[in-house]
Amino acid sequence: METNQNLIFTNHPGEAIDRWVETHRPSGVFIVTDSTVQQKVLPRIASTTVATAPVIAIEPGDTHKTIQSLDHIWSSLCELGATRSSALINIGGGMSTDIGGFAGATFKRGIPFINVPTSLLAAVDAAVGGKTGINFRGLKNEIGSFREADTVIISSSLFDTLPREEMLSGYAEMLKHGLISDAGVYRRLIAYDITAPDPASLLPLLEENVRVKQRVVTEDPTEKGIRRALNLGHTPGHAFESLMISRGTPVPHGYAVAWGLVVDLILSHMKLRFPSAELQEVARFVRAHYGAPAITCHDYPEIIAIMRHDKKNRSASDINFTLLSSPGEVKIDCTATPEEIAAALDIFRDLLGI
Amino acid sequence: METNQNLIFTNHPGEAIDRWVETHRPSGVFIVTDSTVQQKVLPRIASTTVATAPVIAIEPGDTHKTIQSLDHIWSSLCELGATRSSALINIGGGMSTDIGGFAGATFKRGIPFINVPTSLLAAVDAAVGGKTGINFRGLKNEIGSFREADTVIISSSLFDTLPREEMLSGYAEMLKHGLISDAGVYRRLIAYDITAPDPASLLPLLEENVRVKQRVVTEDPTEKGIRRALNLGHTPGHAFESLMISRGTPVPHGYAVAWGLVVDLILSHMKLRFPSAELQEVARFVRAHYGAPAITCHDYPEIIAIMRHDKKNRSASDINFTLLSSPGEVKIDCTATPEEIAAALDIFRDLLGI
Repeated sequence: METNQNLIFTNHPGEAIDRWVETHRPSGVFIVTDSTVQQKVLPRIASTTVATAPVIAIEPGDTHKTIQSLDHIWSSLCELGATRSSALINIGGGMSTDIGGFAGATFKRGIPFINVPTSLLAAVDAAVGGKTGINFRGLKNEIGSFREADTVIISSSLFDTLPREEMLSGYAEMLKHGLISDAGVYRRLIAYDITAPDPASLLPLLEENVRVKQRVVTEDPTEKGIRRALNLGHTPGHAFESLMISRGTPVPHGYAVAWGLVVDLILSHMKLRFPSAELQEVARFVRAHYGAPAITCHDYPEIIAIMRHDKKNRSASDINFTLLSSPGEVKIDCTATPEEIAAALDIFRDLLGI
Repeated sequence: METNQNLIFTNHPGEAIDRWVETHRPSGVFIVTDSTVQQKVLPRIASTTVATAPVIAIEPGDTHKTIQSLDHIWSSLCELGATRSSALINIGGGMSTDIGGFAGATFKRGIPFINVPTSLLAAVDAAVGGKTGINFRGLKNEIGSFREADTVIISSSLFDTLPREEMLSGYAEMLKHGLISDAGVYRRLIAYDITAPDPASLLPLLEENVRVKQRVVTEDPTEKGIRRALNLGHTPGHAFESLMISRGTPVPHGYAVAWGLVVDLILSHMKLRFPSAELQEVARFVRAHYGAPAITCHDYPEIIAIMRHDKKNRSASDINFTLLSSPGEVKIDCTATPEEIAAALDIFRDLLGI
């Protein structure tokens, strides 16, 4: 995979899109998005390209990231006469950039595409780093490829109608990037008031943050090693997310990640002497903004069982974690026993007041 | 795309497959093939792996290189419990290596796969070079990716039941590789008696030949430039192939390529002074082995119209050719006018005695 992805941070996304088209002169331009973004966000982007290019819209939501939607995008490109020198502009949340990216990676064996994320979570996570794909047979991202967007245009001005919950969900991934990067990045995030964000002050924070992910991905595009740093918080996070889904009370992905970060920092403290002060600080931040999942010690066996089935594990007996010895000091491929995990969950409930 | 594809030339393919599995120790191995190869060729490969691995078979023939077959492969891999560390062994003609390669490139964002071509054409063409994919909405190879097999195991002993027509079809692509490589490679091919091939003498010829393609692909994996050398013979070849399909008298791909080579060498002679002696020699070889298409001057407008719609053209007015100034001296992105093409077709009919 090529890793020379160009990142543009601007609060004039329409101008950036038009400039990209003028510079690259594709033979045709096609917009991939979902129908909600098409109605609510596209009209707000001041761009000749966006106003005139054909729109290929799919239904919103991760449940539509399917082979049927992919077939619809491929078929539309055929019908609209797209060629090898055409380009896609994927505008939307992670669903649109994931499936639009996979369509771009595979139509005529690959055509250029750019991503314009319209949610904070997509900007800091899905839109950057080259993971494209679809869900298949109920399995998340089962089919896909590693292929970066040619350019990602990131504008915090596109997020200003997002509900608070969605902003917080994206912010958990930002916090993760801060923790794996260095104390400075981490500290600026803890100090920022994400409950009252404004586009102008959020943009530089976002730029610093996305570049952390970009650096990690450039070092290890296909996740053979250090890219797993990005899994911090995600082993327990996925377990919380799955548990809540199975109970019929789903939570936003970022909330589960925020709780997962606290568990992983507790394990980091137990096993790698991650400093207690920062652990307490993150726990306070998470408790204040994300609350806590309603779990008791009776849920531990189920939580641990879910962790055991995580596809990141290398063997059936070990549970794999990414941990830290301090902010910025990452140790991938750590393992923990069920007893250690149960002990960490006890401390977790204590810190979050459950 | 990575271009460190490993090529193994052996007339003990079963041993080579078993050795690959022993060395790479995938968590599971799955064979992708077509039902004819499954019945007729698989039992002849002396390999523990081939004897025991689950077989995912699709219907034979290019008409089954579809999204439905791809869905079947992906679904089978899910059901059979394939993981990120599983591997595919694609055994068959170009259809199996194309679709099996695309499945390997996209299942869980890419798992290792090896190709074992069972036809001469697949060995010298489809199995090597990283073009994977499926047909879509009637368009050939419309969806796919560039992703090389980890290893290609090439055995001329697998071809010994192929009909003469299929051997000749593959040999036309070999001749093309000879012409773009150098006079020595070309001359050894002209001298070889392909009507009475034996595996032992064919294998070294095949090795030299496939390495020509490999060198070109390594220089330009995604066909931005010199890889188009491999299009020699293919602009007129595709036109002959399409014409014959539209008349209800299809010809093997390699036959159309053989005729296309003669047309391209005539244009090369007219425009780049390609030597007359070699042109005459190739024309004699093609006439002797491949005969000639039944065309008259009344077919020229249709042939030229098909060439004009070739996806290799960069603009609507020019028709793109790969030509030679001498064996091994390639000029990509040549163009010819309809008048020049008609003149070349006159000489072509003359040389092939139509």
